[in-house]
Amino acid sequence: MSPPRPAPLAVTMGEPAGVGGEVTLKAWLGRRASGPAFFLIDDPERISALAETIGADVPVKAIDAPGAAIRIFADALPVLPLSVRVRSRPGELSVEHAPAVREAIERAVALTMGGEASAVVTNPIHKLSLYKDGFAHPGHTEYLAELGGVTTEPVMMLAGPELRVVPVTRHVSIRQAVAMLSADLIVETAEITVEALKRDFGLASPRLGVAALNPHAGEGGRMGTEESEIIEPAIARIRALGISASGPYPPDTMFHDGARKKYDAALCMYHDQGLIPVKTIDFDRTVNVTLGLPFIRTSPDHGTALDIAGTGRAREISLLAALDMAAAMVERRQTAAVA
Amino acid sequence: MSPPRPAPLAVTMGEPAGVGGEVTLKAWLGRRASGPAFFLIDDPERISALAETIGADVPVKAIDAPGAAIRIFADALPVLPLSVRVRSRPGELSVEHAPAVREAIERAVALTMGGEASAVVTNPIHKLSLYKDGFAHPGHTEYLAELGGVTTEPVMMLAGPELRVVPVTRHVSIRQAVAMLSADLIVETAEITVEALKRDFGLASPRLGVAALNPHAGEGGRMGTEESEIIEPAIARIRALGISASGPYPPDTMFHDGARKKYDAALCMYHDQGLIPVKTIDFDRTVNVTLGLPFIRTSPDHGTALDIAGTGRAREISLLAALDMAAAMVERRQTAAVA
Repeated sequence: MSPPRPAPLAVTMGEPAGVGGEVTLKAWLGRRASGPAFFLIDDPERISALAETIGADVPVKAIDAPGAAIRIFADALPVLPLSVRVRSRPGELSVEHAPAVREAIERAVALTMGGEASAVVTNPIHKLSLYKDGFAHPGHTEYLAELGGVTTEPVMMLAGPELRVVPVTRHVSIRQAVAMLSADLIVETAEITVEALKRDFGLASPRLGVAALNPHAGEGGRMGTEESEIIEPAIARIRALGISASGPYPPDTMFHDGARKKYDAALCMYHDQGLIPVKTIDFDRTVNVTLGLPFIRTSPDHGTALDIAGTGRAREISLLAALDMAAAMVERRQTAAVA
Repeated sequence: MSPPRPAPLAVTMGEPAGVGGEVTLKAWLGRRASGPAFFLIDDPERISALAETIGADVPVKAIDAPGAAIRIFADALPVLPLSVRVRSRPGELSVEHAPAVREAIERAVALTMGGEASAVVTNPIHKLSLYKDGFAHPGHTEYLAELGGVTTEPVMMLAGPELRVVPVTRHVSIRQAVAMLSADLIVETAEITVEALKRDFGLASPRLGVAALNPHAGEGGRMGTEESEIIEPAIARIRALGISASGPYPPDTMFHDGARKKYDAALCMYHDQGLIPVKTIDFDRTVNVTLGLPFIRTSPDHGTALDIAGTGRAREISLLAALDMAAAMVERRQTAAVA
């Protein structure tokens, strides 16, 4: 039998002073005919006004439950109203936005965990603005983990058309990343990554390429010892789990097109080691995917772009890539569940 | 008046067990008709035998002085003989190669500083093999600096068709790079870089893009303080020298094609921050250029490739790019000197 029609994707408002609203309006224009169907959790009046401001011909329709999104998606952008009005102006941050920003995320997670939505797709938030409201998480990802009731660290994958990277340390300074690096962290990240590559990306036997920390992979200890003391033992442990893993690779020679053929995902030791190559190769179509959550979550990998918010210049390519990737992951899980 | 015909480029042997000889043979085939003219400092018998081994139809001719290279270049690969025979087998390192490896470099530098050659183009060496012979420099670049009588640190630029990067710290561990970073180092590197961009790359008003050290440029101090304590003050000092400099940029969003338009060279805080993007974008045509020496020096940016040496599979694209870049730099200096 064919799998059941999936529930719609839940898209969060994100920071209302940023470009989230307008890229969502444009994404609806791009996907109204083909799908995947999604709904936005936001203030419908704000979104209608924004459509007018940027000259986007998008009918906006408030819905009272996610299920309605499937029926109306071809004709209007479905918006599930927040419990509060959102009064925002493009480019102007305000701590007063914070409760609505958080409500959109919390409802998206609850609806997805309850089965009414199939995945969470988040628009960018502005962390400094949330911190002023008492937000205590280093980032979006950690907040989602708490909402999902996950006590282990979630894993951030950046996936572009030609490269997938997973940094084992994330939103910390370079100095702290070096201090935090451990074989346990590398092995745990490898396990979560491989599980996701199998379940959500359809790879039967995923191959990990593990980056060194130091230039030239430490060059026999002359440029660092983390390779021999931490990374090589971690690779041995990963292999002992039956996972295909190679490395540690000199970081500067593992991301060009020939080298990328050796692995399905690159395990990177720090944030920029992975994010520099993936964004350099394809900035617009790189999607942020959170692994290790009890629900599917993707996100465009740009920020709030306050400087161009409200002008209609923001491009929806990255959000479209995030929607499409979430839908593909949903489909793979459903197919696997039915099979 | 037109500038005088330049002297030939001096190409070093590099590690004889590696691919230097064969990429030089192929590079001669690629440039015999068009130039730039170059000569190889090596053992002519070794090179003749190697041409036969890899099936390259290259006549090899021993010369007794660089000047002869210009006359014969269209007809044969000119080889200036070393004082010793080189007995090597592809892929097999030996500490006995070290004196010849060093002699080739030393003579290339001496001939270039004496005006008989116009620039030094180095084939890759194998440092671990040289270390066993008492070689005490962290790398090729530092050795060349000593030979050139330079007491300040030379600067390494990696230049590809779409991006130039200059790491302010180089062949040290990530941990040590963070410890070494200082405003003085950044400012000195900026000055040498800008001087070279003007003189050797023909840019009247070069613009530097300065990378942050930490993810998200430290995100207001939450992910590191080097931006506010070291890099921002350095940028202010660079600007006070009349140099155009912007940043510190979040490292992961400064290397994609749109972002690269903002600068002529990226000043990077550590080796891989610069080398990952430049090699990811165009691995084969990235050239290593040493700035701050009393002579022009370029190098292909690959290693000795011992695993494929002697098979004829090594590609000459990177050496061709290094030869062409050296010749362009020579021409700019000559034009400037005549003008």
